[in-house]
Amino acid sequence: MSVLKPAGDSQTRVYPAGSLLGIEHLDRSEIENILKLARKMHKARQKRGPRRRLGERFSGRRVALLFYESSTRTRVSFEFASKTLGATTTIIHATASSIEKGESLLDTGYTLRALGADAIVIRHPSSGAPQLMAQHVGVPVINAGDGMHEHPSQALLDAYTILQHRQTLRGLSIVLVGDIFHSRVARSNVHLLSKFGSKVVLCGPTELLPDIAAELTSGVTIERDFATALKGAGVVMMLRVQKERLSGLNLDVESYIRDFQLSTERLKLASRDALVMHPGPMVRGMEITGEIADSGRSLILEQVANGVTVRMAILARALEVQS
Amino acid sequence: MSVLKPAGDSQTRVYPAGSLLGIEHLDRSEIENILKLARKMHKARQKRGPRRRLGERFSGRRVALLFYESSTRTRVSFEFASKTLGATTTIIHATASSIEKGESLLDTGYTLRALGADAIVIRHPSSGAPQLMAQHVGVPVINAGDGMHEHPSQALLDAYTILQHRQTLRGLSIVLVGDIFHSRVARSNVHLLSKFGSKVVLCGPTELLPDIAAELTSGVTIERDFATALKGAGVVMMLRVQKERLSGLNLDVESYIRDFQLSTERLKLASRDALVMHPGPMVRGMEITGEIADSGRSLILEQVANGVTVRMAILARALEVQS
Amino acid sequence: MSVLKPAGDSQTRVYPAGSLLGIEHLDRSEIENILKLARKMHKARQKRGPRRRLGERFSGRRVALLFYESSTRTRVSFEFASKTLGATTTIIHATASSIEKGESLLDTGYTLRALGADAIVIRHPSSGAPQLMAQHVGVPVINAGDGMHEHPSQALLDAYTILQHRQTLRGLSIVLVGDIFHSRVARSNVHLLSKFGSKVVLCGPTELLPDIAAELTSGVTIERDFATALKGAGVVMMLRVQKERLSGLNLDVESYIRDFQLSTERLKLASRDALVMHPGPMVRGMEITGEIADSGRSLILEQVANGVTVRMAILARALEVQS
Repeated sequence: MSVLKPAGDSQTRVYPAGSLLGIEHLDRSEIENILKLARKMHKARQKRGPRRRLGERFSGRRVALLFYESSTRTRVSFEFASKTLGATTTIIHATASSIEKGESLLDTGYTLRALGADAIVIRHPSSGAPQLMAQHVGVPVINAGDGMHEHPSQALLDAYTILQHRQTLRGLSIVLVGDIFHSRVARSNVHLLSKFGSKVVLCGPTELLPDIAAELTSGVTIERDFATALKGAGVVMMLRVQKERLSGLNLDVESYIRDFQLSTERLKLASRDALVMHPGPMVRGMEITGEIADSGRSLILEQVANGVTVRMAILARALEVQS
Repeated sequence: MSVLKPAGDSQTRVYPAGSLLGIEHLDRSEIENILKLARKMHKARQKRGPRRRLGERFSGRRVALLFYESSTRTRVSFEFASKTLGATTTIIHATASSIEKGESLLDTGYTLRALGADAIVIRHPSSGAPQLMAQHVGVPVINAGDGMHEHPSQALLDAYTILQHRQTLRGLSIVLVGDIFHSRVARSNVHLLSKFGSKVVLCGPTELLPDIAAELTSGVTIERDFATALKGAGVVMMLRVQKERLSGLNLDVESYIRDFQLSTERLKLASRDALVMHPGPMVRGMEITGEIADSGRSLILEQVANGVTVRMAILARALEVQS
Repeated sequence: MSVLKPAGDSQTRVYPAGSLLGIEHLDRSEIENILKLARKMHKARQKRGPRRRLGERFSGRRVALLFYESSTRTRVSFEFASKTLGATTTIIHATASSIEKGESLLDTGYTLRALGADAIVIRHPSSGAPQLMAQHVGVPVINAGDGMHEHPSQALLDAYTILQHRQTLRGLSIVLVGDIFHSRVARSNVHLLSKFGSKVVLCGPTELLPDIAAELTSGVTIERDFATALKGAGVVMMLRVQKERLSGLNLDVESYIRDFQLSTERLKLASRDALVMHPGPMVRGMEITGEIADSGRSLILEQVANGVTVRMAILARALEVQS
């Protein structure tokens, strides 16, 4: 059992080893270990020919994919990762209505453990749901996105992807642009990048990026002017903006595009070799132009591909500890 | 082809051997065989390390999981059981609308057989749907719950669980409490326990337990007072009560809780070592207190775990006969 | 990369080899190769005992089943076919709303490729969606039905089934009856049968079979009188008629049944050994009587069973080229 502090709680709590609940309370060494394991996984697969199964080390192990919110790429990514490790999966699409009470979520967890789940991957609209489950259920829990809180496997695959192109995260200037406030991807990335000494610049309108975001962790600054934010940026990480959300905030789509869309012209303001990232799904023509998304500077599809590899490492770490 | 009488029908009909349609028309020896096979399965898995695959005896065999009603634990249980045996699964979530006619249900069955399904696991809102399919389709059909009729795999796993704690079902006093009328779990359990000479006591308000229930089979009595029913009880089996159903029946939630909730205090009225069971999903604070559900007396999670083992036996029995 | 002309486009475009987008632009030799491979698959499975896995040649290969429209038989058929080849599957049920823009469909395709999909099986309400994906995404795309355009795997399994009963398609008189206009099954079959020299007769009311259908390809004639159409017919292929559609067209159900239902009486007007086919799901009592559907003349369930075999060949062809 490893000791981690859950988010929003100063007490030390014990979670099943191999759990991945968030980046905020994860040690640098743990992060490095996961990334190292992912690189090992990647090499092992290369050796045995592309896309072959990685032995049968986890044959017969059971992974429950519990999705209370819809997802394509994250769910398929964890599913392919599990199966590549030789594990058996089951997918549970739950509606929020069936878990109105905290107890029900836990009972679902207890039931999955009793059914023989060796790890539970959970996506949930409520922040903290994976932590609650990990605290009580007794099998490793992997957070696949919880409310507006964290999406740790995304931050890990983003770091993995950057490190395929850069020697180190230290000193790297990374701009996150858009709807920071609602984004669990942003939160997890800010925590990870800050731990490794990157210079994190957040950029967006006040409605989507409150001033308080600068206090999220150390080494984070807010810059509301996109042009200024881009100066010297080595990585530009765009976030999805939902039209519906903008209108709810009385934000104008046209002015959003004018001020915060990443275009070829605008990218010239960043470092000459700046990398472009997006966790997907992207809205072409909204936060990013198709031209940039499809350009040689874009790592968007590399992120997706690395997602399977990194999630294999995350799952192997969860299943390993119990063998 | 084994000879079984379908429910509600005095004629003898022939179903594909390996079918499991209900407990009512199942011989004691058949039940004992399934429980024996489940114990063998359990031991085989223990030997090969926890949660390993049970050989490849059923490799390439195909199991269709046809769910016309939603289910988590039963579906996942049959899915994991199939995969542990090495079989291939497909899940079909059907809406009631697509099977408005009897013929359509049968055509779905014929189609699944033609697609190579070696066994069909079916949950259906209409009582008798699995029997209809088994009569015509020509592959073993396993009833995973049909309307208000039967849920035979649940009764088998319940018996399996009790027998892990008691030498015999004979003479054991078992109280079933709650919504007996709507419960296929209750019906299947009553039939099984009565066959093996248990003393079955049904307890609940008239609205959820009509007097005629005592005629379900021999050895069954109704006792409306929970305290009296609990006297000498060796097993207390609680059933889920749905709030919506109560209000439809003009039953008061508070008075239901007062009269029929299983609490620590109330359990003291039963045998000193009385076992507590619940087929799940339970509504904590409604028919059962969380304290009792989580206590050492509760077998609730053992029931879930045994569900996979017993369903492995049920599936092996279905697939065996065709090999 | 093979060179194929996409439907409705005079330009020559390049699709990933192993793609199956439609029958219209497929060479006769390609069709024959797929049917030959299917026969080989069938024999290989017979040898190793019924329903065994076909080696592990495609072990670790990943097939994405992307269904924008609901489907039971086609989806399960491709799923079992993939798994029998040893490949790993993932099922994605998409709603039309998530792909309102063409770009989104392509981004889904790019994402699936990045996730490691070696082939994408797609069913989509818009004609041309699989072509669009194949043009851009760079992995073999298999059309599992697109709008009112094509359903090539159905036509291939239909040809495979006929050829289990007849020496050749050449000169065979085949009547397609019913809602030709809305049927992608009909379109694909007409193209295939015409390529192989069958005499194709289309039969149905003007509302469901416009005169222009005769220009679909060479060797096709329209005959509105069912009795006349049946004269000398070697195969009668019935199509599903949806009641809702009829009322939308001010067509009378009763007169439709009177004029176009295939009954025992009517079948006597065809060749003495005429074969009856239906792609399913059928509406018994509407376009076909239950008596005919269940008779020895009906190949309906053979079509379903052959569907798995033919789709194994289609998938092997798609996965082979990349090994």
